[in-house]
Amino acid sequence: MCTLEKRGDIYILTLTGSDEHRLNPTLVDSIRSALRRVRAGPASPSSALVTIAEGKFFSNGFDLAWAHSSQPRLELMSAKLQLLVKELISLPMPTIAAVTGHASAAGMILALSHDYVLMRKDRGFLYMSELDIGLVLPDWFMVLLKCKIGDAKVRSEIILTAAKLTAEMAAVRGVVHSAHVGAEETVEAAIRLGQELVKRGWDGNVYGKNRTVVLNEVLEKIGTVTGGG
Amino acid sequence: MCTLEKRGDIYILTLTGSDEHRLNPTLVDSIRSALRRVRAGPASPSSALVTIAEGKFFSNGFDLAWAHSSQPRLELMSAKLQLLVKELISLPMPTIAAVTGHASAAGMILALSHDYVLMRKDRGFLYMSELDIGLVLPDWFMVLLKCKIGDAKVRSEIILTAAKLTAEMAAVRGVVHSAHVGAEETVEAAIRLGQELVKRGWDGNVYGKNRTVVLNEVLEKIGTVTGGG
Amino acid sequence: MCTLEKRGDIYILTLTGSDEHRLNPTLVDSIRSALRRVRAGPASPSSALVTIAEGKFFSNGFDLAWAHSSQPRLELMSAKLQLLVKELISLPMPTIAAVTGHASAAGMILALSHDYVLMRKDRGFLYMSELDIGLVLPDWFMVLLKCKIGDAKVRSEIILTAAKLTAEMAAVRGVVHSAHVGAEETVEAAIRLGQELVKRGWDGNVYGKNRTVVLNEVLEKIGTVTGGG
Repeated sequence: MCTLEKRGDIYILTLTGSDEHRLNPTLVDSIRSALRRVRAGPASPSSALVTIAEGKFFSNGFDLAWAHSSQPRLELMSAKLQLLVKELISLPMPTIAAVTGHASAAGMILALSHDYVLMRKDRGFLYMSELDIGLVLPDWFMVLLKCKIGDAKVRSEIILTAAKLTAEMAAVRGVVHSAHVGAEETVEAAIRLGQELVKRGWDGNVYGKNRTVVLNEVLEKIGTVTGGG
Repeated sequence: MCTLEKRGDIYILTLTGSDEHRLNPTLVDSIRSALRRVRAGPASPSSALVTIAEGKFFSNGFDLAWAHSSQPRLELMSAKLQLLVKELISLPMPTIAAVTGHASAAGMILALSHDYVLMRKDRGFLYMSELDIGLVLPDWFMVLLKCKIGDAKVRSEIILTAAKLTAEMAAVRGVVHSAHVGAEETVEAAIRLGQELVKRGWDGNVYGKNRTVVLNEVLEKIGTVTGGG
Repeated sequence: MCTLEKRGDIYILTLTGSDEHRLNPTLVDSIRSALRRVRAGPASPSSALVTIAEGKFFSNGFDLAWAHSSQPRLELMSAKLQLLVKELISLPMPTIAAVTGHASAAGMILALSHDYVLMRKDRGFLYMSELDIGLVLPDWFMVLLKCKIGDAKVRSEIILTAAKLTAEMAAVRGVVHSAHVGAEETVEAAIRLGQELVKRGWDGNVYGKNRTVVLNEVLEKIGTVTGGG
């Protein structure tokens, strides 16, 4: 599922395995469990979180095969992801996604729920696939996209043309922070960025609270979700 | 008032005549009636709508002469336009405005209520004239402008300096999709864009529902309007 | 505290003295009193307001020393500033801040509450210092920043990296209107801009009401504040 290690001040959360990292409750709870261990760590010196994924996919979105169109399963999956996003938003340290594979639909949302998205240039897309596969975007995805992507035309391109954005396209459009040569370079850049942010010596709790102000609308939208911890 | 024809998969809605296409209830209801015929058409293969206007004006806004400052007439006119915008937002296919003449005030809002705005370079302005003529922008215009124009400085330029934007200015500012040499080229480009979008083979209903998610705030703002069908 | 003079059609509000212009209730009430005199002036011909500050600081934010961590004092200070911002938002004329020194935290919010921010290049920063000094941004600051800065990445840079923006950085990021060589040039450019806007001959009350539409979310957020006039 996922592993957590600490290198210096940087927590590295890795989605392991070469599968599509579909966001079923098992994987989401595994990530949430890792975030709880991160929170339980020493509060100082300050830290940063880098999320990476092995294989060709950062995450290919919800596990629709697992849900097999069962409404309760779809709702459980959605509720779990909302809880994860909520926990990322209040995490008391900067968060960085190193996207070295496809990040589609809910997987793109997971990536964008980090403060920074660094992406490899040579392969991988950001892709809201809903329109192509006959689905309607959940309202809370849209709220997050509005908070993260300022350009209305870019949001429309992503949702209403189901555009597949390479790292370079995404960087130009202000969707990701930077584009890097390959997978290794992307992860290294993410760790370096984490280290630079740690050097600022911010109080993690203050950082997390400021992030909840920035993403206030997302929290308001998903605020009432409960999902059995 | 307006005509509707179908060329291949493209519905072409034309505001006819060389007048200013002022948005009084008669014209708005005529457009809404055309949209109802579009909706009643065969659901597949997928389609697109291109809206064009004959003459020097795409639309010069509300028909203030018709309203002659009567509050009930102004409210009726506003309610009708809100219904039209609501129906455009849920229309089950991509929508494209080919702006080959001035689009002012409510006329600019009508143009921006399409998914894409293509505009001719050699004449015509987008222009929120309210400040110049002593009027205050309705709140729901602002909500639509916020959903459609990401750049806060550009919104301010449009509303608080009553800037007249040529096609090239509007394209640079992210207000329109593209600028074209003349009227004919603009319409041709709009039809070509419609054909490309149709080729994607999207389910029109899914497209329309995703658009309602993207423009959710507009629908919430105008949600309670009723206007006698 | 502050002085008000009128040169032609331009009201010039000056924060006097070489101190940090910390926004305690005394200074804020002094500014509000000046704005009341501006409002009481002849309604036509149309006017513009230029706000400038003597010394090295436009304003270094709330007067935390005065508040010395007293919750009632912090709340009073916040309530007063909200009233000032509310009054700026409805002021019946264009408003221009000539930022010739540091504008930090609440001081940056005061600058951005003007329609235009002109800034000197050779010194001075815009700087949301909260993260660096262990504070959490008030929600209403964020609402104003969202209304004024369209680029989500720039907002994040400002709040979640506590970036110090020079005039040139701020202009490129769409945070200020323009960057000028020195203090004198900045003030001159602000007055010239005011004169150009006055020439448009807008009805001040209509201008102010349109601004309240543009910044509607800010007014909704701070709407319930009372602060003893």
